[in-house]
Amino acid sequence: MTNGANALIETLVRGGVDTCFTNPGTSEMHFVAALDNTDMRGILTLFEGVATGAADGFARMTDRPAATLLHLGCGLGNGLANLHNARKARVPMVNIVGDHATWHAQYDAPLQSDIETVARNISTWIRTPQQTADLAGVAAEAVQVAMGPPAQIATLILPADVSWSEGAEAVDPLPPIDASVAPDEVIDQAAAALKGSGRKALLLGRRVLTEAGLTAAAKVAKQTGAKLFCEVFPTRLERGAGLPPVERIAYLAEMASVQLNGIEHLVLVDAREPVSFFAYPDKKSYLVPEGCAVHRLVEPEHNALGTLDALVDAVGAGQTRIQVQKAERPGLPSGRLNAGKVCQAVGALLPENAIISDEAQTSGVKLPLYTAGAPRHDVLTLTGGAIGQGLPVAVGAAVACPERPVVALTGDGSGMYTIQSLWTMAREDLDVTVIIMNNRSYAILNIELERTGAEAAGPKAKAQLDLAEPPLDFVALARGMGVPAERVHTSRQLVKALKRAFAEPGPNLIEAMVPSEYRGLKLKALPYALNALEKMPPSVARAVKKKIAP
Amino acid sequence: MTNGANALIETLVRGGVDTCFTNPGTSEMHFVAALDNTDMRGILTLFEGVATGAADGFARMTDRPAATLLHLGCGLGNGLANLHNARKARVPMVNIVGDHATWHAQYDAPLQSDIETVARNISTWIRTPQQTADLAGVAAEAVQVAMGPPAQIATLILPADVSWSEGAEAVDPLPPIDASVAPDEVIDQAAAALKGSGRKALLLGRRVLTEAGLTAAAKVAKQTGAKLFCEVFPTRLERGAGLPPVERIAYLAEMASVQLNGIEHLVLVDAREPVSFFAYPDKKSYLVPEGCAVHRLVEPEHNALGTLDALVDAVGAGQTRIQVQKAERPGLPSGRLNAGKVCQAVGALLPENAIISDEAQTSGVKLPLYTAGAPRHDVLTLTGGAIGQGLPVAVGAAVACPERPVVALTGDGSGMYTIQSLWTMAREDLDVTVIIMNNRSYAILNIELERTGAEAAGPKAKAQLDLAEPPLDFVALARGMGVPAERVHTSRQLVKALKRAFAEPGPNLIEAMVPSEYRGLKLKALPYALNALEKMPPSVARAVKKKIAP
Repeated sequence: MTNGANALIETLVRGGVDTCFTNPGTSEMHFVAALDNTDMRGILTLFEGVATGAADGFARMTDRPAATLLHLGCGLGNGLANLHNARKARVPMVNIVGDHATWHAQYDAPLQSDIETVARNISTWIRTPQQTADLAGVAAEAVQVAMGPPAQIATLILPADVSWSEGAEAVDPLPPIDASVAPDEVIDQAAAALKGSGRKALLLGRRVLTEAGLTAAAKVAKQTGAKLFCEVFPTRLERGAGLPPVERIAYLAEMASVQLNGIEHLVLVDAREPVSFFAYPDKKSYLVPEGCAVHRLVEPEHNALGTLDALVDAVGAGQTRIQVQKAERPGLPSGRLNAGKVCQAVGALLPENAIISDEAQTSGVKLPLYTAGAPRHDVLTLTGGAIGQGLPVAVGAAVACPERPVVALTGDGSGMYTIQSLWTMAREDLDVTVIIMNNRSYAILNIELERTGAEAAGPKAKAQLDLAEPPLDFVALARGMGVPAERVHTSRQLVKALKRAFAEPGPNLIEAMVPSEYRGLKLKALPYALNALEKMPPSVARAVKKKIAP
Repeated sequence: MTNGANALIETLVRGGVDTCFTNPGTSEMHFVAALDNTDMRGILTLFEGVATGAADGFARMTDRPAATLLHLGCGLGNGLANLHNARKARVPMVNIVGDHATWHAQYDAPLQSDIETVARNISTWIRTPQQTADLAGVAAEAVQVAMGPPAQIATLILPADVSWSEGAEAVDPLPPIDASVAPDEVIDQAAAALKGSGRKALLLGRRVLTEAGLTAAAKVAKQTGAKLFCEVFPTRLERGAGLPPVERIAYLAEMASVQLNGIEHLVLVDAREPVSFFAYPDKKSYLVPEGCAVHRLVEPEHNALGTLDALVDAVGAGQTRIQVQKAERPGLPSGRLNAGKVCQAVGALLPENAIISDEAQTSGVKLPLYTAGAPRHDVLTLTGGAIGQGLPVAVGAAVACPERPVVALTGDGSGMYTIQSLWTMAREDLDVTVIIMNNRSYAILNIELERTGAEAAGPKAKAQLDLAEPPLDFVALARGMGVPAERVHTSRQLVKALKRAFAEPGPNLIEAMVPSEYRGLKLKALPYALNALEKMPPSVARAVKKKIAP
């Protein structure tokens, strides 16, 4: 027998949860003290949004949950935006949220809040054990349901007295939840649609964007003449030389509509129907073409790869030979820097086996193009749309994969939400190269301001999108948190800095000063301004131009 | 007729809500565009916790709500910790939380979340108007209920289409909610208890810690022989030379118990029963002495000052002469710096009519002592216990009172949660002197680790409280956000830096390097280690020593 905290952590570790991203307070002190009795690694962050985003990045790379340690409802609140992103990423995670002792709640002390209500937005599994003897069993269940399928965020609220009292004993993991292949009739129906006439496409999501999933899907596509798409914001996408390429659905609904135009059968493989990120006056939200039949092949509770393999058999694609991406890199950029050249340099220099955390928004539009034929890598994206996720996810990915280089691209605006991530990168000596695309604005909002039709923006409105006054200095910010950093204005400076950062272990930050090219452009010119057409197949690009251009 | 956004803002402005702390996204673009058509001031922050904390600080100083502009559930989530502090501070505030267009919610787009559930923890008044024509009326009601009494946070969730559609018209403010004086029998009962024999005390809170409230309470205390206490963490406390002094209840329950020892009648004046901040093994949570009668004189819905005045009459204290705090300042400190000397220097140099935002935790223990006789000032404290509140509250106070100097004291740990505050201070050229007490640790947790009885802390546990590796450099962080800064190691350097900062307009940051004196101390030595006894009357200090010391 031991105290609750010891039994809880030992149970988590036995269940494979051996990493905990923390920002503890008084009510978590017994959990903290118990770390030394176990094999749990505790990684301190300076802000809870870093902890939750790091747990997300960790899960994306390992397919198993990390724990978070958060301080009551307010600590959970600070972590909520990245928990939202993690929920949308459908990753496993176990939140441990400390609470007041059970008898203390009645007094409405200053930090008292309704933790379960806060948690409800990001967890359907929420437990608050009231007895120390129950704690280990609840923890084992938390790991089981977090792993899924469907993978999810389990939230265990831990009253301080339940943690500190004696009378607990660690327990072994519960058996994994069975994941069955989709029912035969679902597979047969999708196969029939794909083998039939008419234009068809597969839309790949969450768990099939790995080499195995992409290969199976590419065989189906080749065999049946279907197009191959993947989600706008994949949780984790394996890509690069040697892997089957897949076209991502565009962020702008106008472009996504063109990509999907004329599709008559859409097979969803662990993905949702494509919808517009935001709603706009007089624009469609639901992007599946009218009259298109939707076939939901893989649901979150299914065995995703097993179902996809069954589809391969059902369409007779077992022996189909597919094309993979050729190894090819862009040349090095030259001259004055812009966002596209930063993407080009990353494509030219990306190390083998890298992980890219991409939150560069408008500045990252050319990244997929320039890295398409780079050495094989993983891309982690902004699954839930809540910015401030890129740097924390990079922390978690680097902790999960210490042997792999991590590249985190982020904007100046998005980087500031969870800038405290840099400190944990330095503290844990994580091999992360942070590239800040500093265009001194919320550039995407300049675009969105126009797209929403709010065109007559005056000076007060424009000031809300402008980060130029005072200018942020990310080199100073990085140094303030122990990360070596430099600012670059030219392609030559960038290339030199990137080479050094990729060669050195540990974190590095490069602040790339790029113009905010999109300011004040008219909506109709946007696709050009964004250079987004370049990442589309020529036929699609032509169609977009025809539809949207003046 | 105009669009929803225009009518909403115009209605807020007519209701006296003329300042909005923002961090907008796409769904708020019409609100942003409408700013230029109105007298609303929009103040951009880089993180939502800054916006909500600033609205809190603004309300504390003006007794009227500021608005916040937040981006869907995730933006609200990022603002939640400081909304919690604001709720516990019982200040008025109007949150405007943008949402997807009404028809878009069904598609579960990436940023879709259940905003009302997130809001439930901090607002009892939550409305999501579905029609543009209703919006102005709902906004007027939001202002009315926010003003109270009781003052509260009203949350208006604004679907994008309700905001951008035409068909709205601004409306005039609703009449203020009546605040009645407490019933006669309540006043008479409290008066009888105070006039009777036995030991008695008044505990002052929320709205009576102003000159008028303190003066009335001091008269009652003088007339009846009652002691005068105020809440541990006041929302706003007026104090300094010329004002009646009041003893704050101590943070440590052990000390608070001694302060309240023997009290037989406790009259609560817009305050709650004192409880321990956290629960501890084998320690009391409820700090009212056994057998003490509690008299709730002023509830949040009452006219607080009116009721207190009625109590003055009821105890016959109308002509009672009271003592006020003498003007007296400590001398300037000398030699190597420590936390106490920083407090001493602030006491010695505090400008006239200053506002102090105090989140210095362990390092600020001596601040009340050294500023007791300083020129009259306001103190704003950590009402809800969620750290990361001090710098944002300073932003809001400085916006509210541009003619008054603001001093924000914060720890290194607490300062990092919402460090983005510095950028808004620079952007708005706010006259804030930020003092970072950098002891390179979560010092308070070293104490709490011992107090919770988790004494056998190993290296992994200790690492969770240690901020020394890598060392934070707040001078670099401040410069990165456009705030002039310097680091000081000695008293002489500090005094020079403080004099300059107080003399200059605009923000300044001083990073005071102070030892973490409390590390590894035993629980029983704590009151001495904290030097907390110094701020107590000698009789109380003696009793504490007797009770707690070996």
